Amino acid sequence: MVIIMNPDATTKNIEDVIAVIESTGLTAKVMEGVQQRIVGVIGDKTRLAACAIDAMPGVEQSVAISKSYKLVSREFHPHSSIIDVDGVRIGGDEFVVMAGPCAVESREQLLEAAEIAKQGGAQFLRGGAYKPRTSPYSFQGLEEEGLKYLAEAREKTGLRIVTEVTEVDAVDTVARYADLLQIGARNMQNFRLLKEVGRTEKPVLLKRGLAATLDEWLNAAEYILNEGNPNVIFCERGIRSYETYTRNTLDLSAVAAVKHLSHLPIIVDPSHGTGKWRLVKPMALAAVAAGADGLIMEMHPNPAKALSDGPQSLTPENYNDLMRDVKKLAKFMRDEGIHSIDLA
Amino acid sequence: MVIIMNPDATTKNIEDVIAVIESTGLTAKVMEGVQQRIVGVIGDKTRLAACAIDAMPGVEQSVAISKSYKLVSREFHPHSSIIDVDGVRIGGDEFVVMAGPCAVESREQLLEAAEIAKQGGAQFLRGGAYKPRTSPYSFQGLEEEGLKYLAEAREKTGLRIVTEVTEVDAVDTVARYADLLQIGARNMQNFRLLKEVGRTEKPVLLKRGLAATLDEWLNAAEYILNEGNPNVIFCERGIRSYETYTRNTLDLSAVAAVKHLSHLPIIVDPSHGTGKWRLVKPMALAAVAAGADGLIMEMHPNPAKALSDGPQSLTPENYNDLMRDVKKLAKFMRDEGIHSIDLA
Amino acid sequence: MVIIMNPDATTKNIEDVIAVIESTGLTAKVMEGVQQRIVGVIGDKTRLAACAIDAMPGVEQSVAISKSYKLVSREFHPHSSIIDVDGVRIGGDEFVVMAGPCAVESREQLLEAAEIAKQGGAQFLRGGAYKPRTSPYSFQGLEEEGLKYLAEAREKTGLRIVTEVTEVDAVDTVARYADLLQIGARNMQNFRLLKEVGRTEKPVLLKRGLAATLDEWLNAAEYILNEGNPNVIFCERGIRSYETYTRNTLDLSAVAAVKHLSHLPIIVDPSHGTGKWRLVKPMALAAVAAGADGLIMEMHPNPAKALSDGPQSLTPENYNDLMRDVKKLAKFMRDEGIHSIDLA
Amino acid sequence: MVIIMNPDATTKNIEDVIAVIESTGLTAKVMEGVQQRIVGVIGDKTRLAACAIDAMPGVEQSVAISKSYKLVSREFHPHSSIIDVDGVRIGGDEFVVMAGPCAVESREQLLEAAEIAKQGGAQFLRGGAYKPRTSPYSFQGLEEEGLKYLAEAREKTGLRIVTEVTEVDAVDTVARYADLLQIGARNMQNFRLLKEVGRTEKPVLLKRGLAATLDEWLNAAEYILNEGNPNVIFCERGIRSYETYTRNTLDLSAVAAVKHLSHLPIIVDPSHGTGKWRLVKPMALAAVAAGADGLIMEMHPNPAKALSDGPQSLTPENYNDLMRDVKKLAKFMRDEGIHSIDLA
Repeated sequence: MVIIMNPDATTKNIEDVIAVIESTGLTAKVMEGVQQRIVGVIGDKTRLAACAIDAMPGVEQSVAISKSYKLVSREFHPHSSIIDVDGVRIGGDEFVVMAGPCAVESREQLLEAAEIAKQGGAQFLRGGAYKPRTSPYSFQGLEEEGLKYLAEAREKTGLRIVTEVTEVDAVDTVARYADLLQIGARNMQNFRLLKEVGRTEKPVLLKRGLAATLDEWLNAAEYILNEGNPNVIFCERGIRSYETYTRNTLDLSAVAAVKHLSHLPIIVDPSHGTGKWRLVKPMALAAVAAGADGLIMEMHPNPAKALSDGPQSLTPENYNDLMRDVKKLAKFMRDEGIHSIDLA
Repeated sequence: MVIIMNPDATTKNIEDVIAVIESTGLTAKVMEGVQQRIVGVIGDKTRLAACAIDAMPGVEQSVAISKSYKLVSREFHPHSSIIDVDGVRIGGDEFVVMAGPCAVESREQLLEAAEIAKQGGAQFLRGGAYKPRTSPYSFQGLEEEGLKYLAEAREKTGLRIVTEVTEVDAVDTVARYADLLQIGARNMQNFRLLKEVGRTEKPVLLKRGLAATLDEWLNAAEYILNEGNPNVIFCERGIRSYETYTRNTLDLSAVAAVKHLSHLPIIVDPSHGTGKWRLVKPMALAAVAAGADGLIMEMHPNPAKALSDGPQSLTPENYNDLMRDVKKLAKFMRDEGIHSIDLA
Repeated sequence: MVIIMNPDATTKNIEDVIAVIESTGLTAKVMEGVQQRIVGVIGDKTRLAACAIDAMPGVEQSVAISKSYKLVSREFHPHSSIIDVDGVRIGGDEFVVMAGPCAVESREQLLEAAEIAKQGGAQFLRGGAYKPRTSPYSFQGLEEEGLKYLAEAREKTGLRIVTEVTEVDAVDTVARYADLLQIGARNMQNFRLLKEVGRTEKPVLLKRGLAATLDEWLNAAEYILNEGNPNVIFCERGIRSYETYTRNTLDLSAVAAVKHLSHLPIIVDPSHGTGKWRLVKPMALAAVAAGADGLIMEMHPNPAKALSDGPQSLTPENYNDLMRDVKKLAKFMRDEGIHSIDLA
Repeated sequence: MVIIMNPDATTKNIEDVIAVIESTGLTAKVMEGVQQRIVGVIGDKTRLAACAIDAMPGVEQSVAISKSYKLVSREFHPHSSIIDVDGVRIGGDEFVVMAGPCAVESREQLLEAAEIAKQGGAQFLRGGAYKPRTSPYSFQGLEEEGLKYLAEAREKTGLRIVTEVTEVDAVDTVARYADLLQIGARNMQNFRLLKEVGRTEKPVLLKRGLAATLDEWLNAAEYILNEGNPNVIFCERGIRSYETYTRNTLDLSAVAAVKHLSHLPIIVDPSHGTGKWRLVKPMALAAVAAGADGLIMEMHPNPAKALSDGPQSLTPENYNDLMRDVKKLAKFMRDEGIHSIDLA
């Protein structure tokens, strides 16, 4: 942390700031500039949150310069982690695709979707059994019944299952059926839920919050790792910006940024990231090229009848067309050794 | 809902759209424009979420035109609601102030803060016992011990207690000690938690999410009312924008907008809304003038030692200065009959 | 500027960074932390823009800590400036109101609006003769003919005239008719235009850009002062956020922030700031309470016939109602000595 | 346009709305819903800007449903346009790269950069001679001297020249030296400048504004085409969001969206789009995969000495590495017939 003093700060002001810093066991160093003085703080920054130095007389502002997360940090763990989800390895050479409907609506719909997902080449079936919805009057999901259909689809197709868990009470239940527990965007800072999935042994897919910074997102993962579960996969799904043409603004630069800052894998959700099926394929291909470890996408046997998120779902035809090109591109990138970012 | 067809949509495309609409029991009307055709949908819009018409051939986009919330809507309930919190009436003539530290740190700190809050004229003591924090290594709150100190402070001062509940498991415990249950910004769309507080009889203070639209916020309140608890108070606490000088961008226009759209009261949090103690007083005065029903503010006996959020906390001196002027201004507005917005 | 090195930066990396800093005549100081080393830079920061230190090996990032503007800074000029516009003093005790239609549409419309503005108590008449419009097919303004009507309205009412200048070629013409030159939001970083109005002797009303930070806005004013024109008045008119209920998000905290950072006056535009006439009055009152030096508002004799920006224009009745309460409130604030922010 | 009436709107209110619509020569149709009535407007929407219907009694809001741009629209011109810049065709099969320093700093620097750009495979040399800078004290460019160095570099290397024009007075001068006129982000809505370049015969590279919507951007291009110049190329360069890790948020979904909405080509600027050289390569590759027609990037012989924008500039080594992979990827996409978006 660096503390910038006002140009008219007195020597007494600076002494007081130093006293507060030193009272927490940290060291302070003063740097004299032409226009202003700066106090640098040296030591374990997690203690610094305890000091509200900005409110002290003579202080203009403080600037945090070190990161508060550790276990997720690439500094802490230089080699990229590969997360094994029941035999499918995410973060290594293989490009992983998760596809399926937004919501599990019925046994028939899900089994049909699973078959299409499998045929197209996905390794995971997605589908929500617990649906967080803006309005209490929208379809809220089939809950455990939906989980059972997912398990049945796994039996039939061999696909792994990824599904969202929205509440602490349901973690055990969802973990019984799912191979990969999804934490949705609205729950990215539901810290109690993060801790709970951190206590399971299931891998976790952590979606970025609606308006979360990279720093907040990495810290959210830190909650999970800090409970003992090292198997976290990030998912960029678009952030909220002023642009309304797309449902969200897909921040593909987050793929390379997260890979620079963390050793954990990251996949991309072009369906929520754009909200428009026409934009899903171009963003899926872009995600491959940007170095993502995989994709999660909405595909529905009949999008016009989908109970939620239809406009962003692919038809089976669109899905197959996309998969053909995504697989070609991922293979090309791997075979040619094209690395979008240099990593240890 | 209005569905805008592509200029090159065929008659068959339009017939298909009408068929899907009518399959849900709604009525469709076609309007022929010069450049394009529009299909209007008439009937109960809550069924419409079930149709993903945007993905149908020939459809350019659909535009929702009616609101999905009802119980919180002023259309549904034209007269402004007054929420009674153990004798303090919020939403009526009285301007209500809630003050206290961000976090309950110790018995001494809290009792000292309560005394100052009371002397300054607040009706509520605020203080967090469960603290949602970005980093798992930051101070997370004293939990039930903190609630006990809050209860003791109520005994000593007569102030009502408002404190945050962050998880479903803790609702009963917090409700035993608090007069007003706060749902924090990060939990605004924690729908399970909303339902749980909706099942209690305690009034709820619902903070706006970090990047929530007014529509999402009003729908979040609808979750609470829909469970049977009509006593919701909104709290505008700043939204996330590109501006980093302030911690958040306090959206004071939300005060009048919410009063136009809903019958429920709304208060303002200028501490989180700005993140800088220097800006708390001007924004507090502005909130009064904009027609807010009250304020919630951070005040700390010694902000430079606060365990969290010090930079935005007022010192006792700043707090007293602010309260003197806020009370004068609120009295002036009431005595002069200055209404910032005309309501039924 | 503070330069944060990577944890694995070598001594050679740090020496190279110091060499680049010293090559520009500045001084570097190294601070050794537990996890990382920091290099502080001391001296005139305007030279620092010339060094792209972030791209050097071993550098994690650099953090700017001093401001690039000087003449507009309160540090440079501690006492608040009062700008005299032909006898009306902005930034002092008087609260100043500028009202009138968005666009000058006809002689009749403008003279009628001027009469209403005057009767209601405004000191300035606003009205656009040159209109920057998103679409080339929208009404673009009456240009010099509109300026003549404005001058005629001044003759008849004694109101001062504020009107927008959108291009360098028109500065002389507009300056012949107007008392206060407005730079619109879209031109806040039209640096050539800023320099041109900086060479006139007319006071300038500088609106905040659609998505401008406070720092960019203050620097834009610096362009004007740097050319020799010290008479700049800021105008907060709302910023672009994700919220679409309002046309923009009015950032009233900017009022107090600008007063803290600069000695120049600031007024507020609640019409563009909200885009909805219902929200204009509450935001106008809030602006008074926040410590603004004045308001600029759209008022139209017949908003439903306005050629632009009708939805945010006040009717004469709404205008008179607003003015009555704004004047009462401004008088109250002054008489009671309520200061929203403490300034030298 | 669709006008949504309040639930309590009277028949008189609706009649008044219809009267205003019909007074402009348009046709109105009323649609009766369960909760509210809607008035649809049929006819040439460019007249509609003249009616401020939102402010009329009984009106809740109006929703625009047709686009205000025509000449840039794909509806108007279904086949993709190819823009020929002195023999280099943009928008067709060839992937085009523009590379060079942010600013022309000296003859030596520019000629060295040109040689590197050429060797790496770029078709265009970029370099700013007129630099719009946030602070008046930052380096503002070499102006015409810089243009002469650019022309000399063209002579020596055969590269086409793209450079920014920031003011109306300079359009003729810049057009004498440049092959492609760049309109920068800050000038995207400098309508006078747009008209001026619209009157030249030079192709124009139109960067997206800092916080411009797609609709505003397409309308800005419409200003140019409407003056008679059909040769516009869009450039996505990142938008302003709350995320500060990157300088801007590169909105790659805009590539496919613009191709859906318009027939004009679009290229991507990953340097300004991220502000961090580490992220330039992954975003460049992603842009290729998303279907962009080209790239514009900052490359500097010695980024650590760059007079502006160093942190986002590539070194020659990084540039060559990037170009090798970008060319491979573009060739692969073309050879395999991978289309990110289906177009006529």
